[in-house]
Amino acid sequence: MHQFISLADVTDLDALIQSGRDAKANPFADEHLGHHKTIGLLFFNSSLRTRLSTEKAARNLGMNVMTLNVGADSWGLEMEDGVFMNADKAEHVREAAAVMGRYCDILAVRAFAGLKDREADYKEQVMTQFARYAGVPIVNLESATRHPLQSLADCITIEEAKTTPKPKVVLTWLPHIKPLPQAVANSFCEWMNPRAAAGHIDFVVTHPKGYELAPEFVGDARVIYNQEEAFAGADFIYGKNWSSYSQYGQMLTDDPSWAVTMDKMQLTNNGKFMHCLPVRRNLKVSDAVLDSPQSLVIEQAANREWSAQAVLKSLLLELK
Amino acid sequence: MHQFISLADVTDLDALIQSGRDAKANPFADEHLGHHKTIGLLFFNSSLRTRLSTEKAARNLGMNVMTLNVGADSWGLEMEDGVFMNADKAEHVREAAAVMGRYCDILAVRAFAGLKDREADYKEQVMTQFARYAGVPIVNLESATRHPLQSLADCITIEEAKTTPKPKVVLTWLPHIKPLPQAVANSFCEWMNPRAAAGHIDFVVTHPKGYELAPEFVGDARVIYNQEEAFAGADFIYGKNWSSYSQYGQMLTDDPSWAVTMDKMQLTNNGKFMHCLPVRRNLKVSDAVLDSPQSLVIEQAANREWSAQAVLKSLLLELK
Amino acid sequence: MHQFISLADVTDLDALIQSGRDAKANPFADEHLGHHKTIGLLFFNSSLRTRLSTEKAARNLGMNVMTLNVGADSWGLEMEDGVFMNADKAEHVREAAAVMGRYCDILAVRAFAGLKDREADYKEQVMTQFARYAGVPIVNLESATRHPLQSLADCITIEEAKTTPKPKVVLTWLPHIKPLPQAVANSFCEWMNPRAAAGHIDFVVTHPKGYELAPEFVGDARVIYNQEEAFAGADFIYGKNWSSYSQYGQMLTDDPSWAVTMDKMQLTNNGKFMHCLPVRRNLKVSDAVLDSPQSLVIEQAANREWSAQAVLKSLLLELK
Repeated sequence: MHQFISLADVTDLDALIQSGRDAKANPFADEHLGHHKTIGLLFFNSSLRTRLSTEKAARNLGMNVMTLNVGADSWGLEMEDGVFMNADKAEHVREAAAVMGRYCDILAVRAFAGLKDREADYKEQVMTQFARYAGVPIVNLESATRHPLQSLADCITIEEAKTTPKPKVVLTWLPHIKPLPQAVANSFCEWMNPRAAAGHIDFVVTHPKGYELAPEFVGDARVIYNQEEAFAGADFIYGKNWSSYSQYGQMLTDDPSWAVTMDKMQLTNNGKFMHCLPVRRNLKVSDAVLDSPQSLVIEQAANREWSAQAVLKSLLLELK
Repeated sequence: MHQFISLADVTDLDALIQSGRDAKANPFADEHLGHHKTIGLLFFNSSLRTRLSTEKAARNLGMNVMTLNVGADSWGLEMEDGVFMNADKAEHVREAAAVMGRYCDILAVRAFAGLKDREADYKEQVMTQFARYAGVPIVNLESATRHPLQSLADCITIEEAKTTPKPKVVLTWLPHIKPLPQAVANSFCEWMNPRAAAGHIDFVVTHPKGYELAPEFVGDARVIYNQEEAFAGADFIYGKNWSSYSQYGQMLTDDPSWAVTMDKMQLTNNGKFMHCLPVRRNLKVSDAVLDSPQSLVIEQAANREWSAQAVLKSLLLELK
Repeated sequence: MHQFISLADVTDLDALIQSGRDAKANPFADEHLGHHKTIGLLFFNSSLRTRLSTEKAARNLGMNVMTLNVGADSWGLEMEDGVFMNADKAEHVREAAAVMGRYCDILAVRAFAGLKDREADYKEQVMTQFARYAGVPIVNLESATRHPLQSLADCITIEEAKTTPKPKVVLTWLPHIKPLPQAVANSFCEWMNPRAAAGHIDFVVTHPKGYELAPEFVGDARVIYNQEEAFAGADFIYGKNWSSYSQYGQMLTDDPSWAVTMDKMQLTNNGKFMHCLPVRRNLKVSDAVLDSPQSLVIEQAANREWSAQAVLKSLLLELK
């Protein structure tokens, strides 16, 4: 693997999932791989799981880790080319990426969607510019439209927890108090669709009308607008809020009837509940569900460490 | 030791003090103990000594250290159970603690008193919730009502510097410009009272009327409202400001006559001056005292490293 | 070397430049030197290159690194002696420096000029106070009037890239949208002047009238007010904005004709362009120059790692 920006960078997903599970079983087996190698973690946005799990994974592999909070530790970066830089951004990504690429063997970047300008968000400018100018492999720590380290952890979690050969996996929209990016939902579709196509899972997406995901992400997934119908017989309920793609970045409803409760979980096949966290309790999903044995949210978050470790191992092997 | 939240977690205080002194004499003797172990340092509030000394102690023990500034690096955490989370907190401590407990072998947490609601502060919700949900040992880096790593460093400092078998130790209130928590004063009493009961020291507390500490902390300590009387013959003067417990969080006086000066130090038995730092010079204690050979404040702060190292060593030994 | 605050601390500059080039050729050759040694990085101001390159250099040498953002991670520090501390600063540098000097073997400090009070800035209070009270070697990560790690990287870069035995080096003022400190320009003069005196380079400074640097820094450098005349036959163009020293901290002009363009680079001897970064593209220097093979800015920034490593190695050797 030469970078990890989206699923397109993964040549063998089954092997990557297995690599994550191997790391979980034996975290320090590859500690020599990262000797004298440095990863830079660059945050344009807040993070808890991604920050800690990626740092931990890198150290499990024996790497040196350097973290920078852009805008707090340093300053804002200009992403557009050809700009006369007389506004608030003190440095251009061409310099920042190239310089950090000289200090680091791998650069990992988190930069959320602005949710103002769909075209700008969907062209993934930050990741694209870093990939163009850093001169070292880039890892996506959640970008405007994707969160692939989360999706890989989700794959690991489903593989570990499935009790049938071809589980039914349901991505459901949840209510929220403010508009959120589509990145996690997009990425989950991007990773589940080929697994559905390969016959590993049955994949369903459910949300209120108006919350249709971008066509390139939802792909051939079956979309059901009736949440209860979607939940019927599900083995995994994957909850997430996202804002509208068509009316970009808008919150069209906060309909509380879309929250996940034990009543709804009864419709499933003793289904497991997943969520990428952070989750606002009772607003999106009830305490009862989160505190039940059906909840996988902690194991899923724990698997972020092994997801990151599988990706970093793969990148380190290519660094020679 | 299975956690380090208060003195109640310490089974053998004399041994713990000795362990700190051993670490000071030979900082890297136990470097193997922390191999492949990670401590997470979680700050809800600012820190200088606690942050650096704990990080240093952990590295002396060979540990991996990951630090998170809650609210800056990540987001606010909801501490109350059963809440419909539609306000400013994006994540519940149940998830945050449990997830961090999966990435870390030990979690250390700093969270000051709010000083608005005495009952809330004194039930130690943050420490209690982390201890309940993290699934790994918790270390108190100063909580609403206690600062035990400071108190252990204070014990080490007194042991090192005492020149008589049973020194007189005086905790004195100092003036300040704004209300401060009672944590350091509470903790100092909590740790000194049993040492007084065991005959190791003579312990006196002095403060203006209205600044009485909580009964469960001040215990059987001798309280003298006349500061000069209290100072007479003292071997150690431990200065600290705190706000009122009875009129909770209020600043009842900023009477400058309570500041410590060389004149007052003359009343002591060539006593040593201690303070946990940071200290506002001349407001609380004069330059002359802080810059005199009687001041132990730098040595006391330096001992924070050995206090943390003794505690972490003890916890690592229990991790197997 | 016992500290690294200015060029005056360097006993053999040629050897230090060579040490940096040796580190670049073999980054881990001295990894044993920093074993069980800790450097504290203390930031009163934002940083990208300095933070990452110094951290990386320290780790190349096997050191432990602890970073503190003053005012964010901790609180403001009082620098004046004899103050009655009842204002916004919670701790005095006497305590903060002394305590950090107990946790760290070397302390590195970044603190920019305030640009309000020339005398205050030019007496270098922060560096001076840290050097006085820390009890361990201090490294200047850019102070009010100097940026010596940058200057050392600049020396390394010029040595690497020069194509004539005695290159012509031109420091040119560039336009900017707000007043900036004189530190980089001062330091560059401070380091270039003795190299000019020793016959290694020909050194010229060019800027609009009113931007004369402090006499103790500009020294005997040749000052030419006509930029095109200064550029004639130059081997290195070193661009930088700074505010006025005589009308202290003022921005007297933002004349765009002082920006560096390809037309101006034609006047040089196929000259190389250098800048310490961050650089505002097109405002200070055109995209065409920065993206041309004549630009050394990325290599120059990369050399910050080797500059820091040479300095830290020299300090570690003195630690015993």
